[in-house]
Amino acid sequence: MVKTKLRVGIAGLGRMGKRHAVNFHELTARANVIAASTPDGEEREWGQENLEGVTIYADYDEMLEREDLEAVVIASITAVHAEQAIKAIKKGLHVLCEKPLSIDLDVAQSVLDAYEKSLKTHPNQKVMCGFSRRFDASYREAHERITRGEFGLPVVFRSQTADLIDTSGFFVEYAKTSGGIFLDCSIHDIDLMLWFLGEDSNIRSLQSVGVTAVHPGLQESNDRDNALATLEFAGGKIAALYCTRMMAAGQEDITELICERGSIQVNFQPRKNHVEIHDAAGARRLLPQHYYERFREAFITEAAEFTECCLENKAPPISLRSSVKAVAVGQALQRSLISGEKIVFEGQTLKN
Amino acid sequence: MVKTKLRVGIAGLGRMGKRHAVNFHELTARANVIAASTPDGEEREWGQENLEGVTIYADYDEMLEREDLEAVVIASITAVHAEQAIKAIKKGLHVLCEKPLSIDLDVAQSVLDAYEKSLKTHPNQKVMCGFSRRFDASYREAHERITRGEFGLPVVFRSQTADLIDTSGFFVEYAKTSGGIFLDCSIHDIDLMLWFLGEDSNIRSLQSVGVTAVHPGLQESNDRDNALATLEFAGGKIAALYCTRMMAAGQEDITELICERGSIQVNFQPRKNHVEIHDAAGARRLLPQHYYERFREAFITEAAEFTECCLENKAPPISLRSSVKAVAVGQALQRSLISGEKIVFEGQTLKN
Amino acid sequence: MVKTKLRVGIAGLGRMGKRHAVNFHELTARANVIAASTPDGEEREWGQENLEGVTIYADYDEMLEREDLEAVVIASITAVHAEQAIKAIKKGLHVLCEKPLSIDLDVAQSVLDAYEKSLKTHPNQKVMCGFSRRFDASYREAHERITRGEFGLPVVFRSQTADLIDTSGFFVEYAKTSGGIFLDCSIHDIDLMLWFLGEDSNIRSLQSVGVTAVHPGLQESNDRDNALATLEFAGGKIAALYCTRMMAAGQEDITELICERGSIQVNFQPRKNHVEIHDAAGARRLLPQHYYERFREAFITEAAEFTECCLENKAPPISLRSSVKAVAVGQALQRSLISGEKIVFEGQTLKN
Amino acid sequence: MVKTKLRVGIAGLGRMGKRHAVNFHELTARANVIAASTPDGEEREWGQENLEGVTIYADYDEMLEREDLEAVVIASITAVHAEQAIKAIKKGLHVLCEKPLSIDLDVAQSVLDAYEKSLKTHPNQKVMCGFSRRFDASYREAHERITRGEFGLPVVFRSQTADLIDTSGFFVEYAKTSGGIFLDCSIHDIDLMLWFLGEDSNIRSLQSVGVTAVHPGLQESNDRDNALATLEFAGGKIAALYCTRMMAAGQEDITELICERGSIQVNFQPRKNHVEIHDAAGARRLLPQHYYERFREAFITEAAEFTECCLENKAPPISLRSSVKAVAVGQALQRSLISGEKIVFEGQTLKN
Repeated sequence: MVKTKLRVGIAGLGRMGKRHAVNFHELTARANVIAASTPDGEEREWGQENLEGVTIYADYDEMLEREDLEAVVIASITAVHAEQAIKAIKKGLHVLCEKPLSIDLDVAQSVLDAYEKSLKTHPNQKVMCGFSRRFDASYREAHERITRGEFGLPVVFRSQTADLIDTSGFFVEYAKTSGGIFLDCSIHDIDLMLWFLGEDSNIRSLQSVGVTAVHPGLQESNDRDNALATLEFAGGKIAALYCTRMMAAGQEDITELICERGSIQVNFQPRKNHVEIHDAAGARRLLPQHYYERFREAFITEAAEFTECCLENKAPPISLRSSVKAVAVGQALQRSLISGEKIVFEGQTLKN
Repeated sequence: MVKTKLRVGIAGLGRMGKRHAVNFHELTARANVIAASTPDGEEREWGQENLEGVTIYADYDEMLEREDLEAVVIASITAVHAEQAIKAIKKGLHVLCEKPLSIDLDVAQSVLDAYEKSLKTHPNQKVMCGFSRRFDASYREAHERITRGEFGLPVVFRSQTADLIDTSGFFVEYAKTSGGIFLDCSIHDIDLMLWFLGEDSNIRSLQSVGVTAVHPGLQESNDRDNALATLEFAGGKIAALYCTRMMAAGQEDITELICERGSIQVNFQPRKNHVEIHDAAGARRLLPQHYYERFREAFITEAAEFTECCLENKAPPISLRSSVKAVAVGQALQRSLISGEKIVFEGQTLKN
Repeated sequence: MVKTKLRVGIAGLGRMGKRHAVNFHELTARANVIAASTPDGEEREWGQENLEGVTIYADYDEMLEREDLEAVVIASITAVHAEQAIKAIKKGLHVLCEKPLSIDLDVAQSVLDAYEKSLKTHPNQKVMCGFSRRFDASYREAHERITRGEFGLPVVFRSQTADLIDTSGFFVEYAKTSGGIFLDCSIHDIDLMLWFLGEDSNIRSLQSVGVTAVHPGLQESNDRDNALATLEFAGGKIAALYCTRMMAAGQEDITELICERGSIQVNFQPRKNHVEIHDAAGARRLLPQHYYERFREAFITEAAEFTECCLENKAPPISLRSSVKAVAVGQALQRSLISGEKIVFEGQTLKN
Repeated sequence: MVKTKLRVGIAGLGRMGKRHAVNFHELTARANVIAASTPDGEEREWGQENLEGVTIYADYDEMLEREDLEAVVIASITAVHAEQAIKAIKKGLHVLCEKPLSIDLDVAQSVLDAYEKSLKTHPNQKVMCGFSRRFDASYREAHERITRGEFGLPVVFRSQTADLIDTSGFFVEYAKTSGGIFLDCSIHDIDLMLWFLGEDSNIRSLQSVGVTAVHPGLQESNDRDNALATLEFAGGKIAALYCTRMMAAGQEDITELICERGSIQVNFQPRKNHVEIHDAAGARRLLPQHYYERFREAFITEAAEFTECCLENKAPPISLRSSVKAVAVGQALQRSLISGEKIVFEGQTLKN
């Protein structure tokens, strides 16, 4: 066991930033969070009260300059993900960046470009986009079984991200900068699709349709609250995606691989925990109400594994290239959703 | 295919009598219901309106005398089961009698005695107690797998009959003549226990405990609304029973066999049908609200198979001897429930 | 209670014909099967042995001419459905026709035309296409809850027909005349879609994609063994269909309605019966292996209700118009599957 | 937030000791493991390699003497639990002791006596027996719902501990010192029973029966591999326990509370994770293979909460008195198992 600990800085202390900060600070044995930055005063106050021994900055650049960091965890707003990532990359720091890299494919590509350039001088540098489901034990078990060919070739990939309905108007406001439901919700399913069907697999066509059923205000941002997509891959594979912001019962994220000799499902029966209740309403189980309630363990594992791959110079479990491709797919699906047109890729594949 | 149809009379047109009458009349291809009897005027009226071509009698004896019956289905009140059965037996008729034969072991035994005597002159006569679960496809699949040794020897048998709570006071009134919760509810579990562990298996001891939680009036009849029992069998097997009249969600009848190399459960997740609902209460399925909602198909199968075994002189699927033994076990459990004492059987077995 | 029984003839005694014959003959109290016809010698032999009192014909026309039928159940090969239906319609007989009416929209339409013309002289005549799932208790419970607005407006309809893999080559042969996977498998889902979203609802667009993963021979018939489709409806509703001939575990037919305030699923956890097994492979339930194992009860109900609506001059539960529309949708989906093009309907709706 | 960290020593580095050491060392933010002791050389070697900065002792007493500990976690063999606990108690240290305190009621009582005496001089001292299920999120949700009366009064408590079968002979050897299946397996269920029905509730009677089905060698230690028990409580409550060392599928620990207006189950459908597989064997989920796979999170929570109650002088979530009572109940059940006699408690209650 290598003894040193990784010196980590956290960028952003919003909802996800707080979680990453606590996970790296308290629950990641080999990481030391030494600094965090956020332009938000209340968030800084939270940091000072809850992150013992961590220096809190208002300015990301100042943190990078003053602290002797080895790695940065970027959990700020999406709009600055790429910029902050590139700055850290140029300093040779390891980077764990919340998804998505950007809602703009060119910007996302610029992070990859910066990383590939930096690798020439910092060959051990790790840059990874934090697709948390890849660290979930159930997805991993499914992936291992598929990969070892337990059920033969995968033929159909189906996946959905279904958020609990939020009647506060949050989604409508959020949609203005989110890049649309496919980049915001389905980006996880897209990442899983690339992971299960092959990060190098060629997408031949895609199309999507959607409606605004409960959040009519989304129309102004050219967005939808329910959408369906289908994709064709070279090599005889097809995929179906579903995303919604309207689930009444809770977070229902389901993924399914149908193969020649069997199918495997992850979370087909979403459940919050091991409790079941039988009463006049029938026999019921409770559902997780939000993403983190379902995936908290995966985030802790993500922190531990990112730390380990930095300290021990191992390959990160997610390639940055595939994360850029995920943005490309999400952007194309969103374009189809609004235009109503099927997109067929030239040269038989999605260019990224 | 033998062409003749079985000429059937129905005794009793109460809740179960109506069901048997319709099942034999309309849904049993090889049976002709030609007569029915009931002392109840409203029930006779129902019969005249709903049982086309069936002669309705007020008096059971008159029906037996006047009609050229081959078989009788006894679905009258428990108190007259044995008497009516014996009368039919003496006339050489086939008999399907609702459970239990009697709440009194001696009376139950007298039916068996009459049958065994009658067999000398009517060797093809069939007399069977209607334990409907034995005709349920799920119990049958479980029994076949156990019997063929798929999981090795069965070691632990667990079974429960759980009725939906009824706040009308019905159970309190009913308890005065029901013979107690073990003879009324658990008689099915006892029959299944004998079926799965062997009708000839020796019970070495049994005991039970119970409470009256929601129907305090049951105390007057020396009955309980929730009871637990354990039994020991010769040959290294044990059993646990649970019965309740207090289920909030519906009918939850569950049976489980734990064997050396696996376990098998019937109805472990009770469900009314294939519907599932996800809403603010969670993810739920509906439960059957009463026994017949769960076992309707089994009753139809019972009618068909009883008819077939009469017409084709096959052995009935349930031996009358084991049905008498079920009464013996139920009576002993009820005795232990009230006395608080464990009952150990002399000569290492329950006498029946 | 009307006393008369319906005089029924059965056309075709193949797999489904046998089932209909037995159901109407033995399990439908108000129907008398008096005749059956089939050009197949072995099937006629089966009829003579198993259908007591039923006259068996080699020729459909002869049966129609000689017997005093009131109703005909058409369960012959799809290619003659329409022709046989029209002949019976012209004689004023009630008709229950197996799905689909035809794989050709014009032919299907000709049945509807014949019926509408005949209604002028036989105003009580009933003609119904047998979409069995509409008679399944679970689909009915779902439909009632949706219709009474329990969960608000339905927004997303998802449904799949998933057949157990058959390695005998049957599907490849069958595909030559089946009209393709959408007309053969998904026709049930399409019918349910029209039932749940409204038989008069306007389809604005549809598209489908598919692959031949395990039955490469299907390519010759321009068919696929796995296909995905999405549809857009006027009024802000969308639908996703999936059909496969490759399921390893069994028949997995699932339907789901996602509404504003809840979702309802039918058969989300397919199961053969109430048995669960725990052994070294984990905790498992068994799946139905074919369509009839799942829907037998629905077929019996279908027989009873068709009979009742003929005898009592009630409206049939499925309109013939919607069954023609189902063919139109299936044909369009199949066209998209092969052409790769999204189909947008002129005048914002599917013409039928 | 209080800033100090708790200085912890670990006694024993066997299977559970290793887990506690890692949990306190790496995953408990407010604890510092500074020392560990074990008489086993291999275990010490493991500690030196894996517990960075922790001093490893061969002798428990020496650790207590030399190190400035505030708390001790006792995870050594059961035979020394009490002795080690009492030594730490006498030094005024906080103690988290693995279950059971002892297999001998008098010895268990002596720990409680020592603690109560020590409290006079160390009023903030915490001593807690580590019943991990009390820290499991699902049991907690069930307990909260029961406690707030969501389903009315609890009437029937049912619980089982079911271990995966182990054919290595381990259990037979282990049984020689384990105190028997009720003290070893069911002690968790007994603790839960006291927690759910009230730690002060009076047990009026208990009895148990059992068999040795797959580990005949257990007979020599007067033990069984399957056992069933029933218990009566004052105030109209009853309980049923089941324990087995023979489960083919995995760890199946289930608890159920049946109340007047509903029932609540924990882990009724045991599952390892969110994966489901559909293949030729049916539709299946995987089961946890051992206790820690199911309860790892609970152990981490236990470490955090024990630490917090020491640092902030809060009442521990489990009273030491109830843990002694659990030993009394387990010992009585084991006595009944072997004697075959029902035990009725004088003065209507179990003396402890």
